[in-house]
Amino acid sequence: MSAPFVNRHIGPDDSQVESMLDRLGYASLDALMEAAVPKSIRSTDPLGLPAGVSEETAAAELRELAGANVPGEPMIGLGYHATVTPAVIRRNLLEDPSWYTAYTPYQPEISQGRLEALINFQTMVADLTGLTTAGSSLLDEGTAAAEAVALAFRANRKASGPFVIDADALPQTLDVVRTRCEGIGIDVLVADLSEGLPEGDVSGVLIQYPGASGRVPTIKPVIDAVHERGGLAVVAADLLALTLLEAPGALGADVVVGSAQRFGVPLFYGGPHAGFISVREGLERQLPGRLVGVSVDAEGRPAYRLALQTREQHIRRDKATSNICTAQVLLAVTAGMYAVYHGPQGLREIAGDIHELAGRAAAALTNAGLELVSDTFFDTIQVRVPGRAADVVAAARAEGVHLRQVDADTVGIAFGETADATTLGALHTAFGVTPAEATPLAGLPADQRRATEFMTHPVFNTHHNETSMLRYLARLSNRDYALDRGMIPLGSCTMKLNATTEMEPISLAGFANLHPFVPAADADGYRRMIDQLEEWLAVVTGYDRVSVQPNAGAQGEFAGMLAIRNYHRANGQDQRDVCLIPSSAHGTNPASAVMAGMRVVVVKAEDDGTVDLDDLRAKCEQYSDTLAAIMVTYPSTHGVYEETITELCDLVHSHGGQVYIDGANFNALLGYAAPGKFGGDVSHLNLHKTFCIPHGGGGPGVGPVAVREHLAPYLPTHPLHPDVSRREGTGAISAAPFGSAGILPISWAYIRMMGGEGLTRATAVAVLSANYVAARLGEHFPVLYRGESGLVAHECILDLREITKQTGVSVDDVAKRLIDYGFHAPTMSFPVAGTLMVEPTESEDLAELDRFCDAMIAIKGEIDRVAAGEWDVDASPLHHAPHTARALVGEWDRAYSREVAVFPAGITVDKYWPPVARIDQAYGDRHLVCACPPVDAYND
Amino acid sequence: MSAPFVNRHIGPDDSQVESMLDRLGYASLDALMEAAVPKSIRSTDPLGLPAGVSEETAAAELRELAGANVPGEPMIGLGYHATVTPAVIRRNLLEDPSWYTAYTPYQPEISQGRLEALINFQTMVADLTGLTTAGSSLLDEGTAAAEAVALAFRANRKASGPFVIDADALPQTLDVVRTRCEGIGIDVLVADLSEGLPEGDVSGVLIQYPGASGRVPTIKPVIDAVHERGGLAVVAADLLALTLLEAPGALGADVVVGSAQRFGVPLFYGGPHAGFISVREGLERQLPGRLVGVSVDAEGRPAYRLALQTREQHIRRDKATSNICTAQVLLAVTAGMYAVYHGPQGLREIAGDIHELAGRAAAALTNAGLELVSDTFFDTIQVRVPGRAADVVAAARAEGVHLRQVDADTVGIAFGETADATTLGALHTAFGVTPAEATPLAGLPADQRRATEFMTHPVFNTHHNETSMLRYLARLSNRDYALDRGMIPLGSCTMKLNATTEMEPISLAGFANLHPFVPAADADGYRRMIDQLEEWLAVVTGYDRVSVQPNAGAQGEFAGMLAIRNYHRANGQDQRDVCLIPSSAHGTNPASAVMAGMRVVVVKAEDDGTVDLDDLRAKCEQYSDTLAAIMVTYPSTHGVYEETITELCDLVHSHGGQVYIDGANFNALLGYAAPGKFGGDVSHLNLHKTFCIPHGGGGPGVGPVAVREHLAPYLPTHPLHPDVSRREGTGAISAAPFGSAGILPISWAYIRMMGGEGLTRATAVAVLSANYVAARLGEHFPVLYRGESGLVAHECILDLREITKQTGVSVDDVAKRLIDYGFHAPTMSFPVAGTLMVEPTESEDLAELDRFCDAMIAIKGEIDRVAAGEWDVDASPLHHAPHTARALVGEWDRAYSREVAVFPAGITVDKYWPPVARIDQAYGDRHLVCACPPVDAYND
Repeated sequence: MSAPFVNRHIGPDDSQVESMLDRLGYASLDALMEAAVPKSIRSTDPLGLPAGVSEETAAAELRELAGANVPGEPMIGLGYHATVTPAVIRRNLLEDPSWYTAYTPYQPEISQGRLEALINFQTMVADLTGLTTAGSSLLDEGTAAAEAVALAFRANRKASGPFVIDADALPQTLDVVRTRCEGIGIDVLVADLSEGLPEGDVSGVLIQYPGASGRVPTIKPVIDAVHERGGLAVVAADLLALTLLEAPGALGADVVVGSAQRFGVPLFYGGPHAGFISVREGLERQLPGRLVGVSVDAEGRPAYRLALQTREQHIRRDKATSNICTAQVLLAVTAGMYAVYHGPQGLREIAGDIHELAGRAAAALTNAGLELVSDTFFDTIQVRVPGRAADVVAAARAEGVHLRQVDADTVGIAFGETADATTLGALHTAFGVTPAEATPLAGLPADQRRATEFMTHPVFNTHHNETSMLRYLARLSNRDYALDRGMIPLGSCTMKLNATTEMEPISLAGFANLHPFVPAADADGYRRMIDQLEEWLAVVTGYDRVSVQPNAGAQGEFAGMLAIRNYHRANGQDQRDVCLIPSSAHGTNPASAVMAGMRVVVVKAEDDGTVDLDDLRAKCEQYSDTLAAIMVTYPSTHGVYEETITELCDLVHSHGGQVYIDGANFNALLGYAAPGKFGGDVSHLNLHKTFCIPHGGGGPGVGPVAVREHLAPYLPTHPLHPDVSRREGTGAISAAPFGSAGILPISWAYIRMMGGEGLTRATAVAVLSANYVAARLGEHFPVLYRGESGLVAHECILDLREITKQTGVSVDDVAKRLIDYGFHAPTMSFPVAGTLMVEPTESEDLAELDRFCDAMIAIKGEIDRVAAGEWDVDASPLHHAPHTARALVGEWDRAYSREVAVFPAGITVDKYWPPVARIDQAYGDRHLVCACPPVDAYND
Repeated sequence: MSAPFVNRHIGPDDSQVESMLDRLGYASLDALMEAAVPKSIRSTDPLGLPAGVSEETAAAELRELAGANVPGEPMIGLGYHATVTPAVIRRNLLEDPSWYTAYTPYQPEISQGRLEALINFQTMVADLTGLTTAGSSLLDEGTAAAEAVALAFRANRKASGPFVIDADALPQTLDVVRTRCEGIGIDVLVADLSEGLPEGDVSGVLIQYPGASGRVPTIKPVIDAVHERGGLAVVAADLLALTLLEAPGALGADVVVGSAQRFGVPLFYGGPHAGFISVREGLERQLPGRLVGVSVDAEGRPAYRLALQTREQHIRRDKATSNICTAQVLLAVTAGMYAVYHGPQGLREIAGDIHELAGRAAAALTNAGLELVSDTFFDTIQVRVPGRAADVVAAARAEGVHLRQVDADTVGIAFGETADATTLGALHTAFGVTPAEATPLAGLPADQRRATEFMTHPVFNTHHNETSMLRYLARLSNRDYALDRGMIPLGSCTMKLNATTEMEPISLAGFANLHPFVPAADADGYRRMIDQLEEWLAVVTGYDRVSVQPNAGAQGEFAGMLAIRNYHRANGQDQRDVCLIPSSAHGTNPASAVMAGMRVVVVKAEDDGTVDLDDLRAKCEQYSDTLAAIMVTYPSTHGVYEETITELCDLVHSHGGQVYIDGANFNALLGYAAPGKFGGDVSHLNLHKTFCIPHGGGGPGVGPVAVREHLAPYLPTHPLHPDVSRREGTGAISAAPFGSAGILPISWAYIRMMGGEGLTRATAVAVLSANYVAARLGEHFPVLYRGESGLVAHECILDLREITKQTGVSVDDVAKRLIDYGFHAPTMSFPVAGTLMVEPTESEDLAELDRFCDAMIAIKGEIDRVAAGEWDVDASPLHHAPHTARALVGEWDRAYSREVAVFPAGITVDKYWPPVARIDQAYGDRHLVCACPPVDAYND
């Protein structure tokens, strides 16, 4: 009965919308959109979605869906384990908007809290794996393994022979690695490593430690052997097992990967979880994904920031072996905090308890005359029950326990943190055996027990009581700027509201605690929710089929390009391997194309950012026989609705190519135009952009791929899920059948509550807001691109190049100065160096839009004082920004007052104080430190 | 499998405990407690409680209990209505430790956020009720009504005649008012006001608006009539109805009371909710409870603080008509934010929708030939179904709807915010009638429809989208200092951990959404939980029976004193009405005794704070025939275990008196001594002290009363609850049968997870910590009292009187200076003026204890500089504390540096910045402003 959700989601209310329209000279939102969106692509029908429902109705429906899943005691294993998220971490991190609404820490001065949390994660991974440097998370264990193989390939191109994969690797890891290796041309050989490395040349080996069977392999001889043959050794390890088993790094591994899920991250039916990767000294600059490092700020104190950012899209576009450009920050932070809360001894005890239970189960089973597949184990045992496996699994299920049916004769049992004596009792019943005691540590090979220390840093040995933990979490989040403080006007990143009603359901036990490989009947709620979401996404994009498996936008791109490639191959057109990409494209596009085995050919862009149709025509002619696809972003990264998109699609189609439309900017289209209808064959979406999944400080993301019917057979598959493996497609893209299933309720709730009309209005208001900002700021900074109507789409680019040339004030200076004014900076220098791209989204109301515009105009006033010679640029507040509180208390010999420095907008009470001053990026890259610095580094 | 909860709850770990014991010279915790606790009271047996369970187990058990309640659609009414807590408010306020772990805003400089939130509440209540001044909340509607009657009595002592209570008042209100009036000697006359005021003298009238029957009375003639006879008019109003009905203030009411529950506060099976009270001009200084007002700070800007604090224990102790000393801050803030989020128009729409549904139900019933009890109504209708009421209620229950069976022939139906067309359909089925349409606003008397405006302040017309609301909540909580930032070492207030696992269950639908008057079968989970909690509390206190009905400590005292009085009366000892109270007692004690109809006789205290046994002996002799009771706090408010307590109890008993032991300091006894065993006949506990219910910024509290068997028949009763009304006792103390039932899971979980051993260890560590602080600080500030062993109990008093005399540095200066060091001040000047009382609790670890001690010692160093003449006291940082960021940017002509001002402890990054400088208390009381100030008041 209260206000409909659409009025809660959209910031500007009716009267604000009206005054913004007035300012722009349009009579209505319809009139504005009529002018902005090209007729050629404009949908005429309303979205075919059910009407929006209230927040309470959506919440009730999701409770019902969650209730239709049956988590039970999840003992299926295979990289997914029962864990207990400490309540203090759940409430004050996973469920706290100051953490989950934060953006990727590209502005490190206002991201020190989560950067510290990530460096804890890196330190924990590096310590446990026994290597020098760990990244700040990858998408999941499967893709981390694939990235590790690609890393080995990049770092060691002279090596020859296949890359050997452990036959005891997780099945989904094997599938993901195969899918990836095929594209980039790495031969894969699966081998039983218990017999040693296969004969002949090998370029590397991937060892699962412990194996999928539970067996704890003796890994040093294999590592030594691969090194002798000039290859690299990758170990996929269980992080908790490493508290009891010797670190792979100590045994010679070059790279270690895995999942941090069981460190307090809910099972989430497969994701999102933090994958991890760590490398030995010498390989750090090859690391895929993000890496947090320590540098210094302008006042000389240590400060965190992303290190080696120049690697972000890795090596040359046309030789890409990775397209990763996001991480799983929220989940990595959760896992890191789990380690902080338990400490090394607490982790050892958890692991010890789990191992003890596994040992008791093993003893009970062998006492009863049953045979184990392996005598060594950490948490997982496999037992042979000839002909009875299905019955035993069914009996366990009746007791509320999910086991793994390996084959008709074998059952797998994996113990997690929630298992206890009751669980053991249920197992005894299911197997019909009697309890037995076990020799302590019996399953761990004596010569591979952990001797090296880990997590000795004070941060892992301090916050073991809840009060201290709560304050640590609060202290870190207080250092950061997230959507709970104000606008984050990032171009192309759509930082809009993540409504609480969307977020709450992910904590429901039915969604949070479900193992991805439970029987279909026990995941009925997920199935219904995912089916509906895929269908809704198909409706709004105008495509026929959607797969939510890709767990990041780049993964969606890769999946889409694979679909195109496989479609051509199925049609006997193997030679079609050319992918046209406009020069203005996001760097991920060519990387994804290359990873799918294509050759990238660049098409020119006009000065206004649109594709040069003449050049496109020429390239289509030139590559007519080999043309596989074109990848375009629409609206383009320049924030403009280009009129020529339909012509472009027709042209490519006429030469036998497929059209890939990158959905990064779908927030400008939803309800007004559907890529599947105006010429696209395939698109990916970013649910964390248009569909309200929070950025989480730099992940999770979700990147569903949407295709027209002819490409549907080539959507991602999965080896362990009947629904998904039934497709004909080309292998798994992500480790879990439905990717980041656990957060899909967020997008489901958004669509359900907004309804077609609400979603359409959101788009219109997003476009209105961008044009309002462009109109107000256009008087002070040139707006770089506009459409034929003179309008921008959902974002606008402010061109500072001339200002920089004349005054020396850089985009960096403006971005950092915005911090003093209480804002997160817009996107800097993308897609055009020397510019700022602003996307206000529909969620910011007029008061906040005006506050931002006022700040930008005030900054322009400061630039004018530099231009007028009043301030030397190096002595200006722009150059010294952001200003810390500490700077105020020392000597003050600046050309401007303290007040101008820190209260330029007059806000004295609710001021956000950056914890550090401007950070020296180059220093940190020259002195690479990626683990927790010693505490005395912070002494003044 | 992870660390047991006791290790999460207790701050110091084993090694820290050891080093603290070392410092004190004790070999073990046992040895320390052996020395500290007098042998005469020491329990020898371990607590008879089950062993502690894990957080996950306790959470699972509470989920099971919540699941055993059946909320359905709650349409019973009687002051409790279905409401929707906006998710953004639930997550970011009710479930956010920065709000719920805050203390009462006695230190206003670090409480500006919740003070603003409370002034929103006051403004909302004042506006809706049409009166000038509203308090910042009372305990519930029933006690608010009783407070209003007492207020009228105080303000108008010359009036004669009974106080008339509307026969259509809520039954529980009537019962609570009767209980209260009896004690303080006010005659009550219940009358049907639809016939006008009864003849003769009347001192006042309480009108229910709308009535319990749903009827909307015409109130102006009754108000005019009572005024003509020299009495005052109190109206108990429904806040939501007032959006459509004219404000009682506009119709002449002097006082308006009610409950703000339906403004987004969960039903919670009866509480906690915010009661409200507002008064016309001229009565503001008579207001019971807390009142937030606007004053100015040392830098001249507006600042909020509690106004008229000198009223806190009201008029003279021996003429007390109120003992209220807490509020329902967390719930009042929630209700205020609900109003902020919906705004006046949103509230009107919610009320309009509810009224429309009621109208449609009324039309359907009358169309079917059924008779309504009243033609006027807002949300509640009563319908006559001769002989069929039970059947109709049962039929509705089968449809998932709870109705009220008024009597055998009458059914009550009350619509709330969650009702919709489906609800209406269920009602049609239950009554066997067919749908009908209604004339809009048909039930509202035309001449009493709302014509006056309300909630016109910008704060109610700004934050209507979720993004804006989220930021407003974050902005306010960022201004405040709560346990999430650091220690709050308040003497006698036991600010310890409120663990997340304790807090999470209160959000479960089965606990949050249950109406207090559902059939017992639908509240089975609550019954089991409450029975268990009452039993556990009996075990730990050594008493035989416990009632959780009192919803604040002072209510528990009142209930306990009533039990004593009624016990004496039942024994034919009506003359026993003397209550002995030591001069050192908390002011609430005598007020409670007086309210129970007793005469207070003060017993002298020794210099060391203990009761003067000689004086006690003399008084016992003197009042031997009339002695009713003694009220003592143990350990006393001086923080010492007195050796004489058993002697004291024996003495009083020997003269026929009962012993009331105030449980405020039970955190020093739990597991070591039980008042019910060492001489007490009755005690109250404060669950928000020892048993972890969070302070919520100044409420909720829970104050169970515990008695020995002979007093059990005199525990609180309730007119509407079979279990509770079965007792013989003396009427209702609180409006709801089980008081603040909704938060009892917190204490239940605490006891369940700690177990007897854990609770006992917590006490020992609390005593250890207090003694550690006393040892470290005793070298710098005299510790005022110590026991015979030289030890303090769970808190210590630092005596600053000599320091103040010699240097002019006051306790206020030290308290405010602690803010600059990042701390909340200890209790100031209680129980002894010029001192600071410190209670560290068991939850603060050694690092935090040391940080506090270091700060206090550093402050002592600053005082020494004043003493040495280096700083004039008025020019010292002590006098200017706390220092705002704004102060830094202006001219600086202080005798100390900016750095000394704001970074005295060297913390520059995680610094807490007070939003205002020291507040001028007197100014605010001279210029009383208790509503939201105009926005331009904040312009610099």
